[in-house]
Amino acid sequence: MTHSPSTPHYLHLTEHFQKIAHFEHLSALGDWDQATMMPIGGSESRGAAMAELARHIHELKTDCFIETSIEQAEEELLDSHQMSNLREIRYQFMQANVVPADLVQAKTQLAYRCEHAWREQRANNDWQGFKPNLEALMKLVKEEASIRAQAQELTPYDALLNKFEPGMTTKRLEHIFGDLKSWLPGLIETVQGLQAGDSKISLAKYSARSQEALGRDVMAYLGFDFTQGRLDVSSHPFCGGVPGDIRLTTRYDEADFTSGLMGIVHETGHARYEQGLPKEWRGQPAGGHRSMAIHESQSLFCEMQLGRGEGFLTQIQPKLRKHLNSQLTIGELNHIYTRVKPGLIRVDADEVTYPCHILLRFEAEKGLVDGSLDVADLPEFWAEHMKSLLGIDTRDDYRNGCMQDIHWAVGELGYFPSYTLGAMYAAQFRFAMEASLGPVDELLAQGNIAQVFDWLDKNIWSQGSLLTTEELVKRATGETLNPKFFRRHLEQRYLK
Amino acid sequence: MTHSPSTPHYLHLTEHFQKIAHFEHLSALGDWDQATMMPIGGSESRGAAMAELARHIHELKTDCFIETSIEQAEEELLDSHQMSNLREIRYQFMQANVVPADLVQAKTQLAYRCEHAWREQRANNDWQGFKPNLEALMKLVKEEASIRAQAQELTPYDALLNKFEPGMTTKRLEHIFGDLKSWLPGLIETVQGLQAGDSKISLAKYSARSQEALGRDVMAYLGFDFTQGRLDVSSHPFCGGVPGDIRLTTRYDEADFTSGLMGIVHETGHARYEQGLPKEWRGQPAGGHRSMAIHESQSLFCEMQLGRGEGFLTQIQPKLRKHLNSQLTIGELNHIYTRVKPGLIRVDADEVTYPCHILLRFEAEKGLVDGSLDVADLPEFWAEHMKSLLGIDTRDDYRNGCMQDIHWAVGELGYFPSYTLGAMYAAQFRFAMEASLGPVDELLAQGNIAQVFDWLDKNIWSQGSLLTTEELVKRATGETLNPKFFRRHLEQRYLK
Ligand SMILES: [Zn+2]
Ligand SMILES: [Zn+2]
Repeated sequence: MTHSPSTPHYLHLTEHFQKIAHFEHLSALGDWDQATMMPIGGSESRGAAMAELARHIHELKTDCFIETSIEQAEEELLDSHQMSNLREIRYQFMQANVVPADLVQAKTQLAYRCEHAWREQRANNDWQGFKPNLEALMKLVKEEASIRAQAQELTPYDALLNKFEPGMTTKRLEHIFGDLKSWLPGLIETVQGLQAGDSKISLAKYSARSQEALGRDVMAYLGFDFTQGRLDVSSHPFCGGVPGDIRLTTRYDEADFTSGLMGIVHETGHARYEQGLPKEWRGQPAGGHRSMAIHESQSLFCEMQLGRGEGFLTQIQPKLRKHLNSQLTIGELNHIYTRVKPGLIRVDADEVTYPCHILLRFEAEKGLVDGSLDVADLPEFWAEHMKSLLGIDTRDDYRNGCMQDIHWAVGELGYFPSYTLGAMYAAQFRFAMEASLGPVDELLAQGNIAQVFDWLDKNIWSQGSLLTTEELVKRATGETLNPKFFRRHLEQRYLK
Repeated sequence: MTHSPSTPHYLHLTEHFQKIAHFEHLSALGDWDQATMMPIGGSESRGAAMAELARHIHELKTDCFIETSIEQAEEELLDSHQMSNLREIRYQFMQANVVPADLVQAKTQLAYRCEHAWREQRANNDWQGFKPNLEALMKLVKEEASIRAQAQELTPYDALLNKFEPGMTTKRLEHIFGDLKSWLPGLIETVQGLQAGDSKISLAKYSARSQEALGRDVMAYLGFDFTQGRLDVSSHPFCGGVPGDIRLTTRYDEADFTSGLMGIVHETGHARYEQGLPKEWRGQPAGGHRSMAIHESQSLFCEMQLGRGEGFLTQIQPKLRKHLNSQLTIGELNHIYTRVKPGLIRVDADEVTYPCHILLRFEAEKGLVDGSLDVADLPEFWAEHMKSLLGIDTRDDYRNGCMQDIHWAVGELGYFPSYTLGAMYAAQFRFAMEASLGPVDELLAQGNIAQVFDWLDKNIWSQGSLLTTEELVKRATGETLNPKFFRRHLEQRYLK
C-alpha cells in the first residue's frame, strides 16, 4: 500500500481503520480467552469490558468525519486496490452507522451474560432457565434487525443476513434452499438404503492428550503454522484470534476421537484462510475475509472436500496408528467419515444430512425475526421440523435441540445459512481446482497437498476482500454460486 | 457506593474511571496472554494493539473535563470514602496528564518489541543484541522521567519512584537503604558462618505436572479461589489479571521444585490481595491496590514471613509427600528454605541476601536516569557491585547479570525498591499481627491459617486505596514504616 500525498482523505481513512483493527485485535483476544481460559469469576467484569470495547469500536466506525472523507476520497486518484478498500470501508461504516451505540453496548453485554448462563443451562437441559434470557436477547435482535432494515431498505432478516453475507437475500436463499429440499431428502433415503448393510465400527477410547498430539500432526500436514497460532480446547469449537496469531479450538471425546479430529480439520481450514489473507492489507477492510460463507467454504473444503475423501484418509491413517496406536484401516476410516445417519447435533452431522439442520434454523430464524415464531414455541417448532426433515424425535431434549448452538445464545441470527452456502462454494471450488490440477486424491497420493493450498491461496486467501464475493467466485471458478456442484459432489461420493 | 444527585461532578468522574477500568481490564488480559499464550507471530500486531490501547487509556485519563470536574467535585458534599476516591482520581489524573500521549504510545510499543527480543536474547546471553534496544528504551524512559519531574517539582528518579510508590523519595530510600547497608553484609557473613557446617540436601527430579498439582494444593491451602483466577506458566512469574479473575504464573524446574513452589506462594500473596480488594469499590481508583510496596508486602508476607517459617513448612510437608512422593523432613525443608547463599539471580535469592540485589539495582537506576551511568557500562557496573555486595563474579554472564529481569526490558525503572520496602512492611505487619493474635506458627499448627488472612483482609486488603500508605500502615501497626522490624525478623530467624 503506497500513499501518495494526493490522497489525503483516503490516507486518513486507512489510518483510522488501522486503529479500529487494533481494538478488534483486543476484542478477538477477549472472545477467545472467555471461551478457553477465563474462570467464572471473570465473567461479569469481562462482559462489561467487552461491551465497553464494542461500544468504542462502534464509535470509531461511526466517527463523524468518515462519511465526508469517503465522499472526498472518492474524488481522489486511487488505484483499483485502493478503490476496493474504499468500497469495504464504506460498507463497514454503513453497517455500523445504522445502529445506535447504546444498542451495540446493551446487546454485547446481554449476549455475554446470556452465553455465560447458557453454558450451564445447556449442560442441565434447562430450557426454562434459558428461555427468558433468549427472549430478552431476541428483543434486542429484533430491534437491531428493524433498525438495519429501515436504513438499508431491506427486510429485517435480510438485514441480519447482510452482516455476514453482503448482498445475500432471503429470496435467493429460499430459491437455493428450495431446490435443496427438492432432492436432498430423496438422496438421504437412497444413501441410507445403500449403507443399510454396513456394520457399525466400534472405536477404542483415546485420551484427550493423544488426540491432541494427533490433531497437531494433522494440522501440520494441512500446513498450519504454529508460530502463527495455537490449538486449545473449548466447549464450542471455533477459530478466533488475528491473522498473525490464529486461535483455534476443538473438544475431545475420549469415546469417539473422530469428531474432535474432524473439528480440528474444519477449524484449520478457517485458520489457513486467515493466515493466508494478504499481509500488505492487514488492518484494512480490504484485507479481511470476504464473507462468512467464503470463510466456511475454506473450513468445509478441508473438512468435507479433502477430509472425508479417500486421498486424505489414506494420508492420515499412519498418523492415527502413530498417535493412537489405532488399527483402523483406510476402508474403515472411509466408512466412518462417509456414514450418513440423521442425528440430533448439527456440528456432528455428516455432510449429507447437515443442510437439513440449516434448513430448520433458517426457517426458525425467519420466524423469530418476523414475529411469526415466539421463543416459547421454539422447542415445538424444533421437534416438528426435526421429525419432518430427519425423522428424529427431539421432544424434551433441549440441550441437543434448540439449545445446542452458541449462535442464538449470543444473539447472532443470520449466520447459519453461511454454513450451507460455504459447503456449496467448497464443492464448486474443488471442481474448478480439479479442472486445472487434476484429481485432488491423486495430488495427495503424490505428496502434493501444497498444490491444493496454493490454488486456494492464489484464488481465495490472497484476495482478501479486494474483490466482491461474486467477482471472487467468478474469477476462481468461471461462474457465480452454482449449487449443482454440491449436488454433483454428494452424488459422486455417496451414490458410487 | 451511593450517589446522591447532589454530587453530579463526582458521579461523572466515577463513571469515567469505571470506563477506564474496563479498558485496563483488556490491558491486563493482553499482558497476561503475551507472557503465557501468544505465539511469536502475534507479537507485532499485539504490540501495536497494546500501544493503541495504552494511548486510549491515557487519553481517557487526561480527558479535558477531568481537571474542572475534580475542582467542582471538591465543592460537593462527599463522605470520607468518596473523598478518598476523589484524592486517588486526582493522583491518577495528575500522573497521566503530565505525560504526552505520543510518548506513552511510543514507549509502550518499544517496550513490547524490546521485551519480545529480550526473551530470546537473554536465553542466548546476547548482550550486544539487547544493548541497543535498552539504549533506545532508556532514551524514552529519561524523557518520561524528566517530563514527570518538571511537572511535579521532583528529581527525575523520584518521579519514576512515584509511579509505584506515591510519596517515596530517593532521599528517604537512601536513608533506609543506607541503614540496611550498615548491618546486612555483617549479618550475611555471620549467618554463613553459622550455616557453614550444614551439608547440602540433594533434590530428586519432579515433573512439571506433579509440581503443578502440588502448587495448586498449596494455593488452595493459602485460600486462593480458583473460580476467581488461574495458574499458568511463564518465563518470568507474575500476578496479573483483574480482581475477579487473577492470573498468576510460575515456572517449573524439574531439578529443583523448591523455587517454583515458593514462586507460587509469592504470587498467591499478590493474588489474595487483589481478590480481597473492596468489591464495592471495584473499577474505582480507591478500590485499587495501595502501592507496589504494599503489594509486595503481601506476596512477601506469604513467601517469607509465612512460607519460610517452620509452621508453614510443617503444614505443607504432607502435601509434598502426597504430590511428589518426597521424603524430605520438616527439618530438611526448613534447612532448604532458610539457607543463606549469595547467588546471581534476584528472584532465586534467599530473604537475607535479597536486599543486596535491590541495592545494586537502585544504584544502577539512579545512574541510568541521571546520566552518570551509560547502558554500555552496565555490565561492568553490575560486576563491580555484585563483587562488593555479594562477593560474586558475574563478568560475561549477562543473562544471569544485568539481563536477568524483565523490568528494564520493558522500561520500568523505579520499581525495584518496592521489593525491599515490601519485605520491610511484611515484617512490620507480622509483628503487629502477632501482638494481637499470638505467634503465627501456633495459629498454623492449630489449623487457623484463616485468622492470618482475616487480619490481612481487615487491615490491608479491604482498605484498597481508601487510606494513604502512611495512614494504612499506621492504623495496621501503630506506626509508619519502621525498618527495625525487618532486621529483628532476620535476626530472630537466622541467628537463633
Ligand atoms: Zn466453521
Ligand atoms: Zn512480587
